Amino acid sequence: MARRTGRRPGSPDTREAILVAARQAFAERGFDGASIRSIAAGAGVDPALVHHYFGSKDQLFLATMNVPFDPRELLPQITDGPPDAIGARLVRIFLGVWDSPAGAAGVALLRSAVSNEWTARLLREFVVTQIMRRVADQLAIDPSQAPLRASLVASQLVGMATVRHILKLEPLASTAPEVLVAAVGPTVQHYLTGDLSEAVG
Amino acid sequence: MARRTGRRPGSPDTREAILVAARQAFAERGFDGASIRSIAAGAGVDPALVHHYFGSKDQLFLATMNVPFDPRELLPQITDGPPDAIGARLVRIFLGVWDSPAGAAGVALLRSAVSNEWTARLLREFVVTQIMRRVADQLAIDPSQAPLRASLVASQLVGMATVRHILKLEPLASTAPEVLVAAVGPTVQHYLTGDLSEAVG
Repeated sequence: MARRTGRRPGSPDTREAILVAARQAFAERGFDGASIRSIAAGAGVDPALVHHYFGSKDQLFLATMNVPFDPRELLPQITDGPPDAIGARLVRIFLGVWDSPAGAAGVALLRSAVSNEWTARLLREFVVTQIMRRVADQLAIDPSQAPLRASLVASQLVGMATVRHILKLEPLASTAPEVLVAAVGPTVQHYLTGDLSEAVG
Repeated sequence: MARRTGRRPGSPDTREAILVAARQAFAERGFDGASIRSIAAGAGVDPALVHHYFGSKDQLFLATMNVPFDPRELLPQITDGPPDAIGARLVRIFLGVWDSPAGAAGVALLRSAVSNEWTARLLREFVVTQIMRRVADQLAIDPSQAPLRASLVASQLVGMATVRHILKLEPLASTAPEVLVAAVGPTVQHYLTGDLSEAVG
């Protein structure tokens, strides 16, 4: 076995060592609390090498999660358009990603997050910092309400992905995306912009 | 090791053998397709013994799922009362079960269903035959729409349980139940009785 274990630039081991240190840092200290500097120290490399391999902290985080796309590229498709249909657009984009080849990575990630506290923390950080915080900024949601609204949206989308792609409960598992956009879009819209305390029995 | 493996009445092995055969039958043929007779044959016992140990097929099914309560006892609490607040009542009862000691069994079941195709099938059968079918009957929902409505309700409730009790995404993980009843109740109500095809952008 001639496998090298050194941490020299250009070695696949260096990239992997950075990812291992980054996963640990993001899970333990959260996205905001983990710095490139501390991740580099954990991997025993120079911070410049982290930037060289992965670019920004955002991009490093996506790499640790094996997310095969950059949520920032999808964001304009959600936020551009009539504000009262942002829920429908969010559901449409979400279904599009899960129904695409990237969906397999989503299934693996969700399975892992449900069984593993560490991955759950990473997924939580991903959802909060990469998606919800940006949608809330774009919508100018009252900051005091944004976290609850965001976690309600997450509850519906995580549930839709789980029922459709993991539990495969019919007919939702094979319902056409636009049927779900019409059914679930108003829910997401309500969670984002509706009155959440309206009286019910 | 003096452990007995015989299938005699009164032996703990008999009860376990019936549960093993029942899990397999329910997962392979579904709740409706699995008969007490075939389960008894699979376990190598007399059908009367299955009834002796577990009572009805419903009760045997609950035992295979380790469900620590009988959904039929909760059903009147959901269906009794104003029809336009059934969504709120369903969310309230659901949260009550998950926040109770029985919630630990729910977390274990959901974790298992997400990682294991067999348990996923059992959970699917449980949700459809023990809960959704009964709620749909009580509400006299158009039978052609009932399955989609039921799986939409499941998507929201499974998602709420996952985000609150497994991913523990804040603030939803520690939000007071009545706040969630007010926020999520209207969603469930919409899925059960609303117009699911209203035009959205």
